[in-house]
Amino acid sequence: MKIDVSRTKIIAVTLGDPEGIGPEIVQSSLRVYEPSCPILVIGEEKYLDYNHNYTRISSPDQITKAGLYLLSVPSDPAKKSDDPSFRYVRFAIDLALQKQIHGIVTAPVSKEKWLAAGIPYKGHTGLLAETANVKKHCMFFWSEELKVALYTIHIPLKEVFSHIEKTKLTGFVRFIDKELTRLFKKRFTFLMSGLNPHAGEGGIIGTEELEAIIPAIKELQSEMHIEGPFPPDTVFLKARDTKDSVVISLYHDQGLIGFKLLNFHSGVNMTLGLPYIRTSPDHGTAYEIAGKGIANPSSMLQSIQLAEYLVLNSSSAQ
Amino acid sequence: MKIDVSRTKIIAVTLGDPEGIGPEIVQSSLRVYEPSCPILVIGEEKYLDYNHNYTRISSPDQITKAGLYLLSVPSDPAKKSDDPSFRYVRFAIDLALQKQIHGIVTAPVSKEKWLAAGIPYKGHTGLLAETANVKKHCMFFWSEELKVALYTIHIPLKEVFSHIEKTKLTGFVRFIDKELTRLFKKRFTFLMSGLNPHAGEGGIIGTEELEAIIPAIKELQSEMHIEGPFPPDTVFLKARDTKDSVVISLYHDQGLIGFKLLNFHSGVNMTLGLPYIRTSPDHGTAYEIAGKGIANPSSMLQSIQLAEYLVLNSSSAQ
Repeated sequence: MKIDVSRTKIIAVTLGDPEGIGPEIVQSSLRVYEPSCPILVIGEEKYLDYNHNYTRISSPDQITKAGLYLLSVPSDPAKKSDDPSFRYVRFAIDLALQKQIHGIVTAPVSKEKWLAAGIPYKGHTGLLAETANVKKHCMFFWSEELKVALYTIHIPLKEVFSHIEKTKLTGFVRFIDKELTRLFKKRFTFLMSGLNPHAGEGGIIGTEELEAIIPAIKELQSEMHIEGPFPPDTVFLKARDTKDSVVISLYHDQGLIGFKLLNFHSGVNMTLGLPYIRTSPDHGTAYEIAGKGIANPSSMLQSIQLAEYLVLNSSSAQ
Repeated sequence: MKIDVSRTKIIAVTLGDPEGIGPEIVQSSLRVYEPSCPILVIGEEKYLDYNHNYTRISSPDQITKAGLYLLSVPSDPAKKSDDPSFRYVRFAIDLALQKQIHGIVTAPVSKEKWLAAGIPYKGHTGLLAETANVKKHCMFFWSEELKVALYTIHIPLKEVFSHIEKTKLTGFVRFIDKELTRLFKKRFTFLMSGLNPHAGEGGIIGTEELEAIIPAIKELQSEMHIEGPFPPDTVFLKARDTKDSVVISLYHDQGLIGFKLLNFHSGVNMTLGLPYIRTSPDHGTAYEIAGKGIANPSSMLQSIQLAEYLVLNSSSAQ
């Protein structure tokens, strides 16, 4: 019996780099988890190291009800260069783009290994955005306590300044607002961070706030609940104390120093703007502790739980 | 009997802006505190609002033993413009430069009020450095868990890049190392933060690490224990797990987002490089909660305790 995809949503969980903590945290998360929808692990049997109760399948068509499934994606002997973590996620992306699955949770991969294998992506986010052919996307960090959207990501700090421009900022916040409203079925309060120390102190310490950030906030205030700019070193505590709020961080470390310190073992990294749900833990492969059974699965577990909540509750992407 | 200043060290605590939480947190800190040396509150009787047991004096000469003292510094009727918080700290500085006192703990002041009163300093640090006539000084944040030295402070983020230069970096770290060794009578491990996301990832995301920061670290490694550069979003957790370590942060928010989130109610702001000890809480005047009796005095109490430890244990400044 083929599953009724109009009612049942499937989430794929990719194993990530088999030499990292991915296989371990996927398994320990699912060991204690009772899913409300089918969870399809995409990887290889040989990297699963205990007697688990996944149903082995070769296609999502075979899924009939909520539960744990395993789909093995072995290497193609004809291919010379191959990275298993890339193979798994590439397979999951194809299923998602064909709407055979509805969410992807990705375990960590190694950027260096992808580079060495000739894979032209610096990590998941670029790959996901390019294969989905979306123009706008955003790295968004979610936890119960704190939500952070990153306006710029993996660019040199020096290049951030050229992006601090009113029209670009308003476009970004409108995009985030629309995506989050669709995904979570509610409106959030946006707390915009400043760029300079003390958010510029009225122009005494930098002018980007006066020239671009404050005008952007003012323009947006008739459309949504947005405040700021707040001093970057206090905006996270303000957000923690403000229900349903999202910090807009202007650069990678401004956002991630705050997010990681407030949510070290439980943060979720989401990609906004994709035609399917995508979450992942907010940490890396952690080779130094892999295989020792000491990796903390909290972030992976929250990533799976959030993906499940979103595939079951959000409106479809346009 | 005049106090033997060769053995007894006096700490001044300035009340700060009387309309802020300064008077409140000074009083609530000292209410539960049994000092090992004389603590001299510098302010005005009228801002102390409960029956306290300070000994009123008009000069540090009158201090004979450990305990709580109050020295009132009323306004000069001849002066047109006057800010009480400036008056208190200016008085304390003179005592410290004359070596009548050995440490100053400052309650928060308002930069805006100082500006309005025509006081040409953006806050305590500039005033303290200029009056002491020191060329090198540093804003240093201390807690039991985490210590952070800021390489640059109140400058626009855009201007940070011109300071990322090998010789300047090595000079700064040598200065910090020397000061901390003198003050705490031990050597610290320095954890240098990168400037760019992921500390530049070998030049993929910015080049300042390769051009200046790594060469500076390499040069310093024969003289002290220094490691890095670490990704700015993980260096604080590394520091928390490394005994007697100090994070070198390259700009204001990189250091203070991390410090404030790990130590919200207990951080101490120190100025290194002065001829006397100087500490202060790491928060501002907090007008919105002043006078309500809800201000948390932890940071002020730790500032007093650290000052006391340092005046009693550190070697003298050169």
